Amino acid sequence: MTKAPVLTPRAEDFPRWYQDLINKAELADNGPVRGTMVIRPYGYGLWERTQSEMDVRIKAAGAENAYFPLFIPQSYLTREAEHVEGFAPELAVVTRGGGKELEEPVVVRPTSETIVNEYFAKWIRSHRDLPLLINQWANVVRWEMRPRVFLRTSEFLWQEGHTAHATREEARDYAARIHRDVYADFMVNVLAIDVVAGRKTPRERFAGAVNTLTLEGMMGDGKALQLGTSHELGQNFARAFDTRYLSREGTRELVWQTSWGVSTRMIGGLIMAHGDDNGLRVPPRLAPIQVVVLAVKGEEGVLRRVREVADALIAAGLRVRVDDRTDTPFGRRAVDWELKGVPARVEIGPRDLERDTAVLVRRVAGGKETVAVNDLAALLPGLLEDDQERLLRSSREYRESRTADVATATEALEAVAAGGWARLPWSDLGSEGEAALAAEGVTVRCLVGPDGSVPVADDAPGTLAVVARAY
Amino acid sequence: MTKAPVLTPRAEDFPRWYQDLINKAELADNGPVRGTMVIRPYGYGLWERTQSEMDVRIKAAGAENAYFPLFIPQSYLTREAEHVEGFAPELAVVTRGGGKELEEPVVVRPTSETIVNEYFAKWIRSHRDLPLLINQWANVVRWEMRPRVFLRTSEFLWQEGHTAHATREEARDYAARIHRDVYADFMVNVLAIDVVAGRKTPRERFAGAVNTLTLEGMMGDGKALQLGTSHELGQNFARAFDTRYLSREGTRELVWQTSWGVSTRMIGGLIMAHGDDNGLRVPPRLAPIQVVVLAVKGEEGVLRRVREVADALIAAGLRVRVDDRTDTPFGRRAVDWELKGVPARVEIGPRDLERDTAVLVRRVAGGKETVAVNDLAALLPGLLEDDQERLLRSSREYRESRTADVATATEALEAVAAGGWARLPWSDLGSEGEAALAAEGVTVRCLVGPDGSVPVADDAPGTLAVVARAY
Repeated sequence: MTKAPVLTPRAEDFPRWYQDLINKAELADNGPVRGTMVIRPYGYGLWERTQSEMDVRIKAAGAENAYFPLFIPQSYLTREAEHVEGFAPELAVVTRGGGKELEEPVVVRPTSETIVNEYFAKWIRSHRDLPLLINQWANVVRWEMRPRVFLRTSEFLWQEGHTAHATREEARDYAARIHRDVYADFMVNVLAIDVVAGRKTPRERFAGAVNTLTLEGMMGDGKALQLGTSHELGQNFARAFDTRYLSREGTRELVWQTSWGVSTRMIGGLIMAHGDDNGLRVPPRLAPIQVVVLAVKGEEGVLRRVREVADALIAAGLRVRVDDRTDTPFGRRAVDWELKGVPARVEIGPRDLERDTAVLVRRVAGGKETVAVNDLAALLPGLLEDDQERLLRSSREYRESRTADVATATEALEAVAAGGWARLPWSDLGSEGEAALAAEGVTVRCLVGPDGSVPVADDAPGTLAVVARAY
Repeated sequence: MTKAPVLTPRAEDFPRWYQDLINKAELADNGPVRGTMVIRPYGYGLWERTQSEMDVRIKAAGAENAYFPLFIPQSYLTREAEHVEGFAPELAVVTRGGGKELEEPVVVRPTSETIVNEYFAKWIRSHRDLPLLINQWANVVRWEMRPRVFLRTSEFLWQEGHTAHATREEARDYAARIHRDVYADFMVNVLAIDVVAGRKTPRERFAGAVNTLTLEGMMGDGKALQLGTSHELGQNFARAFDTRYLSREGTRELVWQTSWGVSTRMIGGLIMAHGDDNGLRVPPRLAPIQVVVLAVKGEEGVLRRVREVADALIAAGLRVRVDDRTDTPFGRRAVDWELKGVPARVEIGPRDLERDTAVLVRRVAGGKETVAVNDLAALLPGLLEDDQERLLRSSREYRESRTADVATATEALEAVAAGGWARLPWSDLGSEGEAALAAEGVTVRCLVGPDGSVPVADDAPGTLAVVARAY
């Protein structure tokens, strides 16, 4: 069967395919102010599921949610030198409020380390107040010159964690715990993206951090996407804001800190990691709608059966949507659910009624089969888990097949030009080699240990650099 | 037993009691930019529970969550004349972005009717796209000259619903449904505030609405707090943004709209409706922590028992926190949980171990009793429901006892001066009487039917005006 493509094929024009998919699957629109976005209900449903899965993991790691103001006095930003240098070019500044020029302009938060430290310095009195583990779900603004929906937007939604600890070791361990138990766990086991977990080179670190841990995913065009970062801040912000605690020994000590964040950029990663030429493919564990039950025709018996099947699937613990919009042609609705990447489609028409059957269409495994309606509730959970595994496996195989082990910067550039990643000893590449790659628009995404572990230092023996073009 | 009061007594200075409670229960701090606030974990926990209870009800009413940008082009605001007039004095304006002066300044959303309509006008094509039912959880900014934490803040968190319908009747019914099934249901059955549900007079309507439904709660000082509003917007925004649909008859018709919102102001209402001189009292159905299990001493056996009891209560479906901070004096921790208004406190000390007992302290019903630990899981759910009912009943009795039926504006002012509300026939008061009250800082909070129903028109026979001083 040939049909006109619904989307620009990925092989033809990947960026256009990405934009097509976002439009046609009704995930998001560009906002009226340059670089902003409107997240439509289906796209927001993906974010809600992301939030809910992440929030459970964040709370399990002991952090509590709170909320800090959107507006930060400009003077706060300047207290940590590297931090202000990193963010100054991207700030949005409010100069008028309540009909008057403000005496001190305020910036719209690009991130909240500064304002959080102002309050940590007030709240933390003694070692008994530590560790202080805070997270917030919020919007942040970084003025974006080359915006792209979900990937680089002037406003985005994220969570940002901020913690204070009594010792360097505790802070280091907590940053690593978030990196591993919250971020990697979510990305691998829910998003089904086989991320590489590593540490950033000094050049690629967060402005104000002493160490940045990262998770990098390979997208469908072979480029890398940074999906989340967890930073050790050392005592940089503590010094700038005099955030101290009274130790057991009675001395006033600076705290050690971490911060960590993931954003709506992950939705962009989901699209580019799992989308195909027919649209999105949502991993079942993430999917806001795991099963859509479609009425092929608007006959009363069909609608009743559709409702019964949906209820049975909901009772089986699945996330289900009924599609009974039978004044829209069936074919168009089927294409729409395929675009949206809903893992399983159960289609029920008049002929299915007497036979007690339905047609089951699977988005990831593919194929179409007639099944007994009474088997669906028992069948689907296993099929969905199978789809989840398929997506992760295919993400892993794809990344492995497109990652070349090379010996020199020149070979790394060749591998990247061929549409993949390269891996080479960091001791061979070094900061000079890194600068040479950067001149070609290629970056060291992260450093990893020879066994895939996260190196405890930049110069740990055997450390490898993973090199790619990145979003 | 006499002890120094933890808070300024309410009778002595209600506003100061309010601020004391917020500080000492660690609910929130003032932010560095005037009028902003930092919501601390326990205060944010109250908001998270509010969101989760509300979100279920909003989704049950058929609305889906989405996200619109924080930044709105200034020109959008001016398209609906009353709307811009209402909000212009409160706007925060971004004039610099990415290091440059912006060509068109952007406002930080004070509410999103304008930007939502810009997109509704694009998304809505035909009658098949209606009703369109959208909600968003977001922060908004209204520059505030006389800020007070939770009640009037320059930035606050809220949900705002925006819907479009084919007919005036459908829009009217949907605004009423949200008012009743989402807002009143949550406020009465979860917040335990016996709100009065009514409609606003034309003078008190939302800027741009043709009808505003409201929920008003009586606070501990006899003043009124508007806890939520649901608006019929008629076709005002549809006209301004040309939001039209193709009807079944093939004509292009303007949609009819609603918008509705509740905010972090509800946390202020919770405090002022249920707080007493010892602190907050949180209704159990809302409480992020329903039961705190305290280790009186840090002995190993006590800590183990505390953990066992907590696990049993969690298994019984309760929201439980363990307090094993035994390096802080027990008395101070008990006062702290009382301040925070956690409904039930289970205290376990060394002497309880052999007897298999615990001391149960109830925040709402009061009293302290020794109970068998094995009975707790069976006992507590019923006691918590009892506390929930007590709070609602006391809210109702308080409001009824402090509401005077009067005949004239002068009598209404007297009743309000005595620290309560007044109720009188709207046909007797009228807009002139309303203006006279307003000159004294007293407003018509809402119009209600003689049977307590929500009037379908300002001039429905028998309509009563509820009059009060308000926050």
